[in-house]
Amino acid sequence: METLSLNQATTIVDAALATARESACAPLSVAVLDAGGHLVAFKREDNSGILRPQIAQAKAWGALGMGIGSRALAQRAEAAPAFFAALTDISAGRIVPVAGGVLIRDSDDHVIGAVGVSGDHPEKDEVCAAAGIARAGLKADVG
Amino acid sequence: METLSLNQATTIVDAALATARESACAPLSVAVLDAGGHLVAFKREDNSGILRPQIAQAKAWGALGMGIGSRALAQRAEAAPAFFAALTDISAGRIVPVAGGVLIRDSDDHVIGAVGVSGDHPEKDEVCAAAGIARAGLKADVG
Amino acid sequence: METLSLNQATTIVDAALATARESACAPLSVAVLDAGGHLVAFKREDNSGILRPQIAQAKAWGALGMGIGSRALAQRAEAAPAFFAALTDISAGRIVPVAGGVLIRDSDDHVIGAVGVSGDHPEKDEVCAAAGIARAGLKADVG
Amino acid sequence: METLSLNQATTIVDAALATARESACAPLSVAVLDAGGHLVAFKREDNSGILRPQIAQAKAWGALGMGIGSRALAQRAEAAPAFFAALTDISAGRIVPVAGGVLIRDSDDHVIGAVGVSGDHPEKDEVCAAAGIARAGLKADVG
Repeated sequence: METLSLNQATTIVDAALATARESACAPLSVAVLDAGGHLVAFKREDNSGILRPQIAQAKAWGALGMGIGSRALAQRAEAAPAFFAALTDISAGRIVPVAGGVLIRDSDDHVIGAVGVSGDHPEKDEVCAAAGIARAGLKADVG
Repeated sequence: METLSLNQATTIVDAALATARESACAPLSVAVLDAGGHLVAFKREDNSGILRPQIAQAKAWGALGMGIGSRALAQRAEAAPAFFAALTDISAGRIVPVAGGVLIRDSDDHVIGAVGVSGDHPEKDEVCAAAGIARAGLKADVG
Repeated sequence: METLSLNQATTIVDAALATARESACAPLSVAVLDAGGHLVAFKREDNSGILRPQIAQAKAWGALGMGIGSRALAQRAEAAPAFFAALTDISAGRIVPVAGGVLIRDSDDHVIGAVGVSGDHPEKDEVCAAAGIARAGLKADVG
Repeated sequence: METLSLNQATTIVDAALATARESACAPLSVAVLDAGGHLVAFKREDNSGILRPQIAQAKAWGALGMGIGSRALAQRAEAAPAFFAALTDISAGRIVPVAGGVLIRDSDDHVIGAVGVSGDHPEKDEVCAAAGIARAGLKADVG
């Protein structure tokens, strides 16, 4: 299994933000976590809200925690709200069920990390996350 | 009252995972707790998500905490969501209302522990948990 | 970098406990974490105390968190007690500075996980942890 | 008062890491927080431990929290250990009294943020943090 490098994570963050500027997104926060859920690289654009760092990380962490993208987590949360209320406590607030948390897979389809983007509509956040992963030559799994 | 031994817990974990492999489950995490809610044995299969250890333990802990299997807890959570939201905080995130947490009873019907399984659909998780308990010559109480 | 498998983790736990029995240790708890600090395999022997699961995991997690074995952490904690008091809060109680947490390195010297053992004197705990890692054909780094 | 921009924060992180490579530091984690204590930019080098993100942020947050660099906090912690034990709880683990957390001041000497560096000896961490701030044309206040 490949290990996500800082170089790759930096590429992902910068490409996600470049995509955000090209598509006139609201100010974003972008977090890249390794397979163990630990922060590797992060940027918060000027005027991106002060809870955005936690939300971006929680989108990515939740994807890693459950093994599916946060868009799929959002769908499951609608169907099972009590289960997801419990998950937020079990994970000590490290999971958030809304699109914008995307798994990073290597060429062998192993999960090597996740990207979380927060600041605009979840669908636009997700597009930026996936674009960043693609720029790094890795596979985006939106779930 | 019988005390759950490490030998019994080991049998339960290994038999639950053997059942999982025979029935082509997704990668699972299996936790066995004693009557006091403390971990005795645990295994996480390769590629089982990083929140699965906590979920498996919370399925088992919640069953012990309320004295019924986590499938029954899920039904109660649907009927009383605010109560279960409070329970997750009261228990500091050690309870999750979804099937897959099964009480272990001895020959006198005393609860001597619980098994939690997480990774596939809750119903399949529960089948693996119950199979593990049966292999150890104990009674599975799904709630 | 190699990924620690459940098979390897199981070998480590069982060999650590076999060593404990051969050397007449007190009842032990043994936890194996992957490189991200997430539980892979765990066993608690009969009559091992109810806080032992957390201590064993914290020995291993602290070693991963700081990148050195917990014996070295214990030495640093003596020299800088306020720093270590802060670390316990920063890590939300997932670190403990006492011998018995040993890093697992692969053939390329990459850290692929850690073992934590608790229940006897820290030095004896450490011997069992290192023996478990050796049995799995991996390198024990006591710090 | 100037507001710390993402551009400035990015310069600080990259210059701190460039300094680290020129001076053969161990793998580092570097966090830049704004005046409100919220993350703006972060990078963790390959093989930097999994608790380093929290430590780097806590060095910077503690500096902001008390209004002095974390080297000065370390000296105070030695003189008043019980007070600092309380501070770690009051701050919910967001403060750590050890060198490497440096205040960022603008041309009017207002505090506009802080940098935290973790991974090598605290003194070397601090040198990298201060170098990063200087490269951005801002004033480093080590406390």
